[in-house]
Amino acid sequence: MLKDFEWKGTEDKEKLSEEIRKLREQLLGQQQQIRDKKLPILVLIEGWATAGKGSLINDLIREIDPRFYNVTSPAIIPEDEMRYPFLYPYASAIPENGKIMFLDSGWMENTVCKLLHREITRQEYKKRMRMINEFERQLRDAGYLVLKIFLHIPRKEQKERMERLLSDHDTAWRVSPMDLWQNREYDIFEEAYDEFMSKTNKTIRWHVMDGNRKKLVVRDALKLLVRKVDTALKNGRYVGEPFDEDFPLIKMPKLKDVDLSPTIEEEEYRKELKKLQNRLGELHNIIYRLKIPVILCYEGWDAAGKGGNIRRVASPLDPRGFDVWPIASPEPHELNRQYLWRFWTRLPRTGHVCIFDRTWYGRVMVERLEGFCSEKDWKRAYNEINEFERQLTDWGAVVLKFWIHIDQQVQLDRFTERQNTPEKQWKITDEDWRNREKWPLYEEAVDEMIRKTSTENAPWHIIESNDKRYARIKVLRIVIKALEKACDGYLDGLLE
Amino acid sequence: MLKDFEWKGTEDKEKLSEEIRKLREQLLGQQQQIRDKKLPILVLIEGWATAGKGSLINDLIREIDPRFYNVTSPAIIPEDEMRYPFLYPYASAIPENGKIMFLDSGWMENTVCKLLHREITRQEYKKRMRMINEFERQLRDAGYLVLKIFLHIPRKEQKERMERLLSDHDTAWRVSPMDLWQNREYDIFEEAYDEFMSKTNKTIRWHVMDGNRKKLVVRDALKLLVRKVDTALKNGRYVGEPFDEDFPLIKMPKLKDVDLSPTIEEEEYRKELKKLQNRLGELHNIIYRLKIPVILCYEGWDAAGKGGNIRRVASPLDPRGFDVWPIASPEPHELNRQYLWRFWTRLPRTGHVCIFDRTWYGRVMVERLEGFCSEKDWKRAYNEINEFERQLTDWGAVVLKFWIHIDQQVQLDRFTERQNTPEKQWKITDEDWRNREKWPLYEEAVDEMIRKTSTENAPWHIIESNDKRYARIKVLRIVIKALEKACDGYLDGLLE
Repeated sequence: MLKDFEWKGTEDKEKLSEEIRKLREQLLGQQQQIRDKKLPILVLIEGWATAGKGSLINDLIREIDPRFYNVTSPAIIPEDEMRYPFLYPYASAIPENGKIMFLDSGWMENTVCKLLHREITRQEYKKRMRMINEFERQLRDAGYLVLKIFLHIPRKEQKERMERLLSDHDTAWRVSPMDLWQNREYDIFEEAYDEFMSKTNKTIRWHVMDGNRKKLVVRDALKLLVRKVDTALKNGRYVGEPFDEDFPLIKMPKLKDVDLSPTIEEEEYRKELKKLQNRLGELHNIIYRLKIPVILCYEGWDAAGKGGNIRRVASPLDPRGFDVWPIASPEPHELNRQYLWRFWTRLPRTGHVCIFDRTWYGRVMVERLEGFCSEKDWKRAYNEINEFERQLTDWGAVVLKFWIHIDQQVQLDRFTERQNTPEKQWKITDEDWRNREKWPLYEEAVDEMIRKTSTENAPWHIIESNDKRYARIKVLRIVIKALEKACDGYLDGLLE
Repeated sequence: MLKDFEWKGTEDKEKLSEEIRKLREQLLGQQQQIRDKKLPILVLIEGWATAGKGSLINDLIREIDPRFYNVTSPAIIPEDEMRYPFLYPYASAIPENGKIMFLDSGWMENTVCKLLHREITRQEYKKRMRMINEFERQLRDAGYLVLKIFLHIPRKEQKERMERLLSDHDTAWRVSPMDLWQNREYDIFEEAYDEFMSKTNKTIRWHVMDGNRKKLVVRDALKLLVRKVDTALKNGRYVGEPFDEDFPLIKMPKLKDVDLSPTIEEEEYRKELKKLQNRLGELHNIIYRLKIPVILCYEGWDAAGKGGNIRRVASPLDPRGFDVWPIASPEPHELNRQYLWRFWTRLPRTGHVCIFDRTWYGRVMVERLEGFCSEKDWKRAYNEINEFERQLTDWGAVVLKFWIHIDQQVQLDRFTERQNTPEKQWKITDEDWRNREKWPLYEEAVDEMIRKTSTENAPWHIIESNDKRYARIKVLRIVIKALEKACDGYLDGLLE
């Protein structure tokens, strides 16, 4: 893409100015429709240092109403400072419906520079390619319009620009030692950029533009934007088709085949609880030191005992090192973004534990059954969730998912008890009763969910919770075993 | 408070366990009411290193449903990494209505340690005392229940605890060099803690507890919490009384006395615009280097030309260094917190420019006139806003506020034009027409707002915008002058 790039001739500035003026008017006219049709637009501008990324963005937004766009530059953050998964800054920065987000360099710059600076391995690089393609596809499938532009300039031009910036005290800080190194190693960068673009040219195509020709670039970028917006507005919001990728799945039983009879004696429970909580407390220290992130996901029937279970796991943890996120129905600003956004933005830092009280699986349960999303949306979600969780475990996270299971009779008993106990009444709502009536539908959905998303890296555990104490002990044991394995395998993971 | 502290005798562990059990039950019973009455609770736990802050929090939350609380530890962040005003991490971490937020050390630790490490001056320390008292009062006045607990342990005990932690490989990392230094300089810290507490014992009282007696502390903290919650629930949500502090105000004209006739010739406009934008671009480089934060606030009549004005100011700025925040009506999670929260969380980093398209002044305009808050709330807001802005300018920010002004006839003309131009129709809504009918009420509110909040550090500028081009030039000139002054005064500010 870069090596055989044809540099453009001189520009007819007057003609271009006129075209730019017209395109700006068109974009202005589209604004209202972008808002009305709730189209979210992400424009990624990548390119060589000093190629003019910032100034291009400035030219693009000049006439857009500030209510319609944002500009962000998720700079290259050193791995050890960030402490979040690779895609975190980008997944957190996606626009809401009806808005345009301009990214001043992003996942490309971050990946290529880190590779060439040897901050990531070749293997990690390959994983990133996969993640990027997943990320872009998920955005497209959720109806996002994504544009990717690369600003290209020749080595000599880059050198001159840097020298000009360096010669003025007020602009010299803009040229970093990294930038100078890029110019010295221009050929290597060119090859690496080329390779990156060829590997991420899948769902969303790259557009390479001539950074030598400022007006031409503005014209071309505006033209691309206006054309793509036009098409998107005409076609209506895109809804991606479901498809199955081959994730290695663990065979799981159906809910109805789970034996719910196991119990534990009071005395043994107390003894075990104390022992296990002590051990978990110790492990929390170790995973904190080793910077292993831990994500515990709780789903289960109403009144199955999620809250009490979570408390028993959380209580031995140092509160400085964990968060519990209760997940209720999404707020407007969350509904206005791809559905995983509100989980991306709640991920733990490395070394921290994060407990989700209900999770992203709402998509394939309540949202599916209540019609809060389209059929294509929830059918696509199994694969999207598997990808999301693989990104988390690839980052090094321990991801454990618990289905807290009871039978219908036990639920009825607990509902009734809640109803009759004043200080527990807040726990029971009409909605709980309504959901209860849909038990068979939920059971079908849960069976399908567990079957399709019990991956080897992030397996489901069905927790028998007719006896809540049994359930607590079982979860604690699973968590401890997983953390011990993660700590033991820590060095292996690094040397892999 | 610390020096004359009476250490407690031995504990009657069994009796305390029983009391703790009962208090936990009471707290459990209060949960539902905390939620129903939308009471937000902030519990700040401060104290010596190894005094048991984390473990106390753990004991407090043990029985609380995870949906009702959060724990956060806004650690001491080095000044240069944070790049936000001092109160930023705490103002960002306040709980939403109906939730309890536990802070594992906060504004006290941050201030005392920084003073003793000589990271802040004595003068900055004094400013912080003022800011903290303002912050706590604002929270109380907004109906927050705030509790402050200090865990006290003797020097010898602290030393032993640290030695114990250091002797075990898995816990040694918990003791930092700072902690060891604190133990060596125990007397100095004790004096500094005492002084801090005596100076911040105003709106919210400190409760010093004996960290030697673990069970006693849990009992006392639970008792305090349960009692305070009980009172708060009984009294109903507190709404603070308005009061006026003596801020040095600039005398401002009333809107009706502003001469709206100034205009600028097309040719002069083009020339000036270009010149001023070039200069602003240069200045943006300098404030970026000097790390001066800039906050530009736009308010004004509908159709006064805010959007176009903002675009002219934003276009010469490097998009990596500024944000435009369009402020619409608050979302549920914003409504559920003190009203300045959504502005605290949108502040620029040092060296960045932030443009607010509408601002926190909504409180004393639309919220006042539409009855979205109580009379006490908006009357109190003038003072709260003056405090907020002083905190920003004390941080080193340039804060400029523009009232973009037109007369009623010009508004009518522009509304009509928007109505008749298809691509501008989105800009005009029924609400705009309704607001227009309330012009006299708004004018009264705006006059009062400008009179009461035009402080010397963050003055209002009334911008005559019957001629939009004149308004743009005027704003650019004001911004440039203020930035030039800030850059010139930069070294003075440091040496002050």
